[in-house]
Amino acid sequence: MKMKKDERRQAIQKAIDLNPFMTDSALCEMFGVSIQTIRLDRTYLNIPELRKRIKLVAEQNYEQIRALEANEVIGDLIQVAPNESAQSIIEVTEESVFAKTQIARGHVLFAQANSLCVALIHKSTVLTQESSIKFIEKVKLHDTVRAEAHVTDQTTHHYFIKVNSYVKDTLVFQGTFKMFYISEDEANG
Amino acid sequence: MKMKKDERRQAIQKAIDLNPFMTDSALCEMFGVSIQTIRLDRTYLNIPELRKRIKLVAEQNYEQIRALEANEVIGDLIQVAPNESAQSIIEVTEESVFAKTQIARGHVLFAQANSLCVALIHKSTVLTQESSIKFIEKVKLHDTVRAEAHVTDQTTHHYFIKVNSYVKDTLVFQGTFKMFYISEDEANG
Repeated sequence: MKMKKDERRQAIQKAIDLNPFMTDSALCEMFGVSIQTIRLDRTYLNIPELRKRIKLVAEQNYEQIRALEANEVIGDLIQVAPNESAQSIIEVTEESVFAKTQIARGHVLFAQANSLCVALIHKSTVLTQESSIKFIEKVKLHDTVRAEAHVTDQTTHHYFIKVNSYVKDTLVFQGTFKMFYISEDEANG
Repeated sequence: MKMKKDERRQAIQKAIDLNPFMTDSALCEMFGVSIQTIRLDRTYLNIPELRKRIKLVAEQNYEQIRALEANEVIGDLIQVAPNESAQSIIEVTEESVFAKTQIARGHVLFAQANSLCVALIHKSTVLTQESSIKFIEKVKLHDTVRAEAHVTDQTTHHYFIKVNSYVKDTLVFQGTFKMFYISEDEANG
């Protein structure tokens, strides 16, 4: 049985409050209505489209990063807990795929994961020292890739970070990164 | 004791015939003359500047690659022996460095090495499966990076490739790549 319009709109507002990165098609499935209906509901509720919601969240996160400029992050930074974890999202565009196969190029997923590691570490200078990566599933044109980075270990000059990247719920890329850092005091001293 | 002008010009021609990627400053050192002199000598000898020589060699090499379009190689392909080895050159530009430190970003060196591996394999479809990389020395703005890729092993569907990247004679990056391929017959069958 379908919900009434008002009920549905309240439920959509709640769903997006909980997860601002929910896509319109996920909302379609959740409420069993057409994408047009979801778009009308969002317009009524004054909820911007997904891309804009991502940018809004990302802008707040850029204030928390230190080792690179906001425009140096490859992807939109949707979550940062400095020195702990971070997440970013990229959309796979024409420039990111092989013309022949429309499969995303390896260095694009690497760049997203690697720049997320730099963004995550709240130090003045951060450089990548080593990395091991696996490309697990093919990523296609127009896919949205969400990368999650978690610090797994830390020493005096290094952070060890694990990155998992997903398209929807499918793990597509996995990487470990050994990052070298210099703290503010050392850089100035 | 300095060489006479004609002798020097003959020697320059010979040096560039042997190594078309010799820089003007390497020639300066070799012959103990100023960069202006080298430039005049090159003009007299009708030898184009380094960047143009690289492009000329690269154009010939693009005819030998199969898995990607010429403009999909990151860097200029200066040598290819299909399924054996390949070399490419990139110059580190403003867009490739961190604004704050002027150090080249990791994914730029990775992209050069990774796309070299794809270019090297003479099959219709080539994808990266795994990679382990090390950033050994900092690469700076305006550095020229030469990547050398060599196949180390091959199985029915995989090539194993080792890449060493250099700035002048200094090893700056090292990587191993496990590449998955599909041959023409399979792709059509």
